[in-house]
Amino acid sequence: MATTDPSTTQVVLDLLGIFVFSISGALVAVRKGLDVFGVLVLAGTTGLGGGFLRDVLIGATPPAALADWRYLIVPVAAGLLGFVFHPVVGRMERSINVLDAFGLGLFCVTGALKALDYGLGPVPAALMGMVTGIGGGMIRDLLASRVPLVFRGELYATPALAGAFVVVGLAHTDLSYWTVALIGGGLCTTWRLLAIWRHWQAPVPTGPASV
Amino acid sequence: MATTDPSTTQVVLDLLGIFVFSISGALVAVRKGLDVFGVLVLAGTTGLGGGFLRDVLIGATPPAALADWRYLIVPVAAGLLGFVFHPVVGRMERSINVLDAFGLGLFCVTGALKALDYGLGPVPAALMGMVTGIGGGMIRDLLASRVPLVFRGELYATPALAGAFVVVGLAHTDLSYWTVALIGGGLCTTWRLLAIWRHWQAPVPTGPASV
Amino acid sequence: MATTDPSTTQVVLDLLGIFVFSISGALVAVRKGLDVFGVLVLAGTTGLGGGFLRDVLIGATPPAALADWRYLIVPVAAGLLGFVFHPVVGRMERSINVLDAFGLGLFCVTGALKALDYGLGPVPAALMGMVTGIGGGMIRDLLASRVPLVFRGELYATPALAGAFVVVGLAHTDLSYWTVALIGGGLCTTWRLLAIWRHWQAPVPTGPASV
Repeated sequence: MATTDPSTTQVVLDLLGIFVFSISGALVAVRKGLDVFGVLVLAGTTGLGGGFLRDVLIGATPPAALADWRYLIVPVAAGLLGFVFHPVVGRMERSINVLDAFGLGLFCVTGALKALDYGLGPVPAALMGMVTGIGGGMIRDLLASRVPLVFRGELYATPALAGAFVVVGLAHTDLSYWTVALIGGGLCTTWRLLAIWRHWQAPVPTGPASV
Repeated sequence: MATTDPSTTQVVLDLLGIFVFSISGALVAVRKGLDVFGVLVLAGTTGLGGGFLRDVLIGATPPAALADWRYLIVPVAAGLLGFVFHPVVGRMERSINVLDAFGLGLFCVTGALKALDYGLGPVPAALMGMVTGIGGGMIRDLLASRVPLVFRGELYATPALAGAFVVVGLAHTDLSYWTVALIGGGLCTTWRLLAIWRHWQAPVPTGPASV
Repeated sequence: MATTDPSTTQVVLDLLGIFVFSISGALVAVRKGLDVFGVLVLAGTTGLGGGFLRDVLIGATPPAALADWRYLIVPVAAGLLGFVFHPVVGRMERSINVLDAFGLGLFCVTGALKALDYGLGPVPAALMGMVTGIGGGMIRDLLASRVPLVFRGELYATPALAGAFVVVGLAHTDLSYWTVALIGGGLCTTWRLLAIWRHWQAPVPTGPASV
């Protein structure tokens, strides 16, 4: 695969993913009755948190989002939008979930590739791809004081991990950057969309929970 | 502005800010019925957490507080004080809130200046100033398993962000370090004190929260 | 003391400690009704979280566990075991608590020594030893949305801090690595086992909690 060269297209896709994630953070904040600042912070941490977590873990500090103002403007815009138009935006949740599946596919690709660039092995790099995809939502749920959604039966993390593993597996082939991204991200997004459509759930423990 | 030179005065102010923040952490812990260790940890994370968060994000590891024993002694002393004298300290909450406003003003200044020193741009540096001011309280509330106070209508983060922006804006002028700090920190502290005095609140979302 | 040389024995002990911690994370997740992914993540963060926290704070990124697949396989195995056999594993809790005390002793030693290696002073290094021992359990409780167990009267952190201080105090003597580890880790584990056996509790605040 050719060296990672974040082109304009990739930046636009990245910003779109951050925007969709931020909207979901803003909606959670509105439903918790947080003030405008809480809405902005939850929008920002949901949109950027996964990348921050990855960058802090792989030692790529300061995170990219702190060095490029476009990455900060997008969650602010999404947060204000969610704050003002939440009755409308909240009714579009199904459409947002579909866009969110594309964001997840995108983030698991860029997260895994950045971790490889920083010298991580294949398994840790795939994990970092998953962390990039799901980390923002986990921090959102922590700040909103609820058990992360991603742990509660929603089939969300597995597609991200699978997509990241495919990306890592293909990273050293002759395939172009965009082919690798399309295969890995496409697997993740398709799987996630099918899970939404068919109400697939992750397995929960069986038998009585001993106390 | 002249180069950042943390003089004895600044260290004393810094330690005072950490002390006040730590007391507020210790009081939350006592009210949650935590044990002496929980009180000390909540005191420490509230006093030092904002600076830790900033240092980890901008790559300034290990954080300054881990390299200077005075920064560790202060939260321990504040935590023990809160643990033993909490019935007295708890009644002084209004005075503590006033001191806390001074701590907030101080931390937004030092946080923004340190981020600039590490090469961050103006907007991220101002954000890091805010994070330094409010991060400790956020970690305190996370560990105490409640939605961060700073999201619940209290006008707290906005003054910190405003003060940090002023500091960043004046950092490249000819003004002396102390003038910049006084203007930025003074704005933050004055605004916060007015918010306490006049019961100003941050706006909350209007209209029904769609579920 | 001779230079830190993680031999095969130490790696085996380390993996055993991670395994025991991961089991406790998996059990908490099962009892909260989380899905299989939540069980795996709670197993992983409980087993590896303390070391991650220490490595991020001292600037040793990426954390060791991300550079060695054995450190990732162990929590996955422990998580799956907890997910499938939780009715059996849950009944073994007393035995797990005993093993956990050995894990705690081990982690406070390795955490303190690694922090010394990275140039931290004695007091911060001892704190990092404690963080390595208790950090995983704290992150587990945060993700499970409950106040960390370590704050609720359980005598857990104090033995870890004491053991870490002993290790730091002996690190510059002529004693061998294994002697230092045995004295420091032994103190921590013995104290913790006595606390389990005799139901020792950490002191809680006395007097009415002012509101």
